[in-house]
Amino acid sequence: MNLKRTLTAAAAGLGLLLPTITLAAEHATEAAPESGHGNQAITLIFFLFVMLMFARIGTLMERIGQPAVLGELLMGVLLGALAFIPGLGFIDGLKGQEFITLVAELGVIILLFRTGLESNLREMKSIGVKAVLVAVVGVVLPFVGGYFVSKLLIPGLESNTYLFIGATLTATSVGITARVFKDLKVLATKEAQIVLGAAVFDDILGLLILAVVSGIVSGGHVSVGEIVWISAKAFIFLIVSIALGQLLAKRIGRLFSRIHSGIGMKMALALLFCGIYSYGAAVLAGLAPIVGAFAAGLVLDPLHFNDFVAPALVGKLRNWTDRLKGADPEIAEVKKEMIEEARHEERMHVENLIEQIGWFFMPIFFVYTGMQVNLETFLNPKVLGIGLIITAVAFIGKIATGWVVGRGLNHAMIGFGMIPRGEVGLIFANVGKQLGVVSDETFSIVVIMVILSTLLTPPILGVIIKRQNQQMAAAA
Amino acid sequence: MNLKRTLTAAAAGLGLLLPTITLAAEHATEAAPESGHGNQAITLIFFLFVMLMFARIGTLMERIGQPAVLGELLMGVLLGALAFIPGLGFIDGLKGQEFITLVAELGVIILLFRTGLESNLREMKSIGVKAVLVAVVGVVLPFVGGYFVSKLLIPGLESNTYLFIGATLTATSVGITARVFKDLKVLATKEAQIVLGAAVFDDILGLLILAVVSGIVSGGHVSVGEIVWISAKAFIFLIVSIALGQLLAKRIGRLFSRIHSGIGMKMALALLFCGIYSYGAAVLAGLAPIVGAFAAGLVLDPLHFNDFVAPALVGKLRNWTDRLKGADPEIAEVKKEMIEEARHEERMHVENLIEQIGWFFMPIFFVYTGMQVNLETFLNPKVLGIGLIITAVAFIGKIATGWVVGRGLNHAMIGFGMIPRGEVGLIFANVGKQLGVVSDETFSIVVIMVILSTLLTPPILGVIIKRQNQQMAAAA
Repeated sequence: MNLKRTLTAAAAGLGLLLPTITLAAEHATEAAPESGHGNQAITLIFFLFVMLMFARIGTLMERIGQPAVLGELLMGVLLGALAFIPGLGFIDGLKGQEFITLVAELGVIILLFRTGLESNLREMKSIGVKAVLVAVVGVVLPFVGGYFVSKLLIPGLESNTYLFIGATLTATSVGITARVFKDLKVLATKEAQIVLGAAVFDDILGLLILAVVSGIVSGGHVSVGEIVWISAKAFIFLIVSIALGQLLAKRIGRLFSRIHSGIGMKMALALLFCGIYSYGAAVLAGLAPIVGAFAAGLVLDPLHFNDFVAPALVGKLRNWTDRLKGADPEIAEVKKEMIEEARHEERMHVENLIEQIGWFFMPIFFVYTGMQVNLETFLNPKVLGIGLIITAVAFIGKIATGWVVGRGLNHAMIGFGMIPRGEVGLIFANVGKQLGVVSDETFSIVVIMVILSTLLTPPILGVIIKRQNQQMAAAA
Repeated sequence: MNLKRTLTAAAAGLGLLLPTITLAAEHATEAAPESGHGNQAITLIFFLFVMLMFARIGTLMERIGQPAVLGELLMGVLLGALAFIPGLGFIDGLKGQEFITLVAELGVIILLFRTGLESNLREMKSIGVKAVLVAVVGVVLPFVGGYFVSKLLIPGLESNTYLFIGATLTATSVGITARVFKDLKVLATKEAQIVLGAAVFDDILGLLILAVVSGIVSGGHVSVGEIVWISAKAFIFLIVSIALGQLLAKRIGRLFSRIHSGIGMKMALALLFCGIYSYGAAVLAGLAPIVGAFAAGLVLDPLHFNDFVAPALVGKLRNWTDRLKGADPEIAEVKKEMIEEARHEERMHVENLIEQIGWFFMPIFFVYTGMQVNLETFLNPKVLGIGLIITAVAFIGKIATGWVVGRGLNHAMIGFGMIPRGEVGLIFANVGKQLGVVSDETFSIVVIMVILSTLLTPPILGVIIKRQNQQMAAAA
């Protein structure tokens, strides 16, 4: 299809969308008292559907060879920027609403759960040492770099501020990378698995750094006992939950299949599993919920759901293949394909179920992330300049990790895959703000770093992976 | 499968669930400051997954021949009642959270949208007069009955209070009935369509009644102009939106299919359509959002999505059928079935997509509804007694509507289908409370009526529809 026609259609589509958004103006926070129904709820739900449509329009990016997620992020930036248009200012009020935030959070949890389902625990173990190496280097380099470069660029602040800037550069936000790998169909590669594993350790290291830095700032000293306890909690949680899960998942699956062996129960059980792990990671171990969701996905295996009925289609395919007889080789070939499809359907079933609700939730997360981009941050030239340099430190510190893993791997894919920073960096900056060591300007610098690391990673990874595919095609 | 074994499994399943809920205690509203991640978000998301599992366990009801929705409601009541157990009191705090409420609202919007998709506009027009008749009778009888019976039972209040009690009995909450009809596979019957149509008019009449009663209470008089304006807005919205939809849906579908013709875009477009109608119904016409969602479903037809690519399976099935050749009659039969399946898949595709995300959202609505049941209301004998009598009035007033539609229809199915009252009645009672004419006791009476009409309708409809099926089987 013609790209120009597509873009015209996209513009016309947006033209249809805008008046409907404008309709929402001023209704967002008031309820019409005469109507008997509050309007806030339906406004938020409607806005969610608008975000979903923006996400879908964003997938146009695929047409120019970019990961779809880049388009979703940029459409989110656009939707957020629409708030500057007179009459659309209410969008600013919507983007911070708890409901929207939580649906986005649910989206990234489902994304990491699905990523875990597609990963393999045995494979994960085999790359464990490399993942730890990548995580450690990727935390130490940006931290040290951030500390010294910010000291050089903004001299005269207390050294605690430099510590906090360094800390905000440490934690990789793995959602973006996981999605890019999925979009470009390289999730099963060793490189992708190393990045995912490193992101888990990364989160633990981030916890420790925050504890150390906060300890230094508030008390002037660090309690070794506390550090040991924080890391012990995180490691024990991960090890125990994964071991328990492997032991119990099949039994629990059988138990619940006795209550109801239908597809709905299968999905509910998978999600509950994901919920317990995410919740446990956050509440028991102080980790990010998405680390728990990823672990839940790693533990679950289609085998654990053997006791549930297969999807209806599988039954139909089996029935047809049983009835197809004859010596015709073409019939035998069709039968073979149908049997394969049935097997694939059955095996993929949990993943497919999660994918189906993921269709709704995951794009919301990326549009939401894009909406959080505050373009005004880029208007102060001094802040922008320092922000760009700090961003460069953040990039280099993670890119370098790609080269610590030894030969035979695509170093750039690992290094650039580790770049995205997200909410963890912002949370660190917020803690620093509360402790009085991070000023508004410093906060904006961190925001610029987060934005650029989020928006630049998808296109860069796109180029790296495309080049690798070409090399492999040329070699073959 | 053995029912006893199933129940044992269910009890064991619940036994596994409870400790995980208890874990959530006290974490619901506090964030762990040392963790770097707030815990409120993941607690709410986890609770949503717990609600989903409760819903699935509730589907056990199907084993004893009851609609699954009854089980979902009762499991919601159970989940709400768990708050009485020491240590689980935090559940009370969770059930009122905006996030949970909005996900439930999204669930009922998707339910009515899907119900509209399965209904047919032409069929709807053919039963229009009957639906209006059912709606009018079903509003007038409970209103008049409620007024006089409450005057008799609780003498000495100002007459405005009796007006308000009457008003709370008028509006049918169609979600429960739509779900029961769906569970029992009678959504396509004339009776079901009449109930759905009547519920739309019902909502308009409810608006008028609230305006009239509020006018009488606050100003002592009713503005005729206002009444005309309220009804005009509602009717004009429905007529214009349905007409516009029929005119434009196909073109809009074609436009958006040019941006992206994939399945994700198809779903996003259908949901956006639903969102615009629901939002318009609420904001422009003062109607319930679900009325708009139902209208959106009525307007949309699979034909409007012809320009999108078919699901991958359809392509596979077509490929296989093309390749299967030979004179064997069994092969011809298999081919025929496969072609039928492909056609069915393609036609049902929008409905299936909505169904897939409905799987997640719809059960949440019913568990949520069950959770709102306040069992303490039943503890005051006087309130309970009056509540039961008012409930009887509410039942009789709607049951009678089944007999105004003429011959050849299952009167009981229509009459009992109109019984459920929901949030609209409670909103009316709230307005009365704000105007100072509805006391706490009167409010509890309304709550009892809403609870009983919600919980008793599914089993009663189950019996009615089962008996009809038996009669038809006997006649055949």
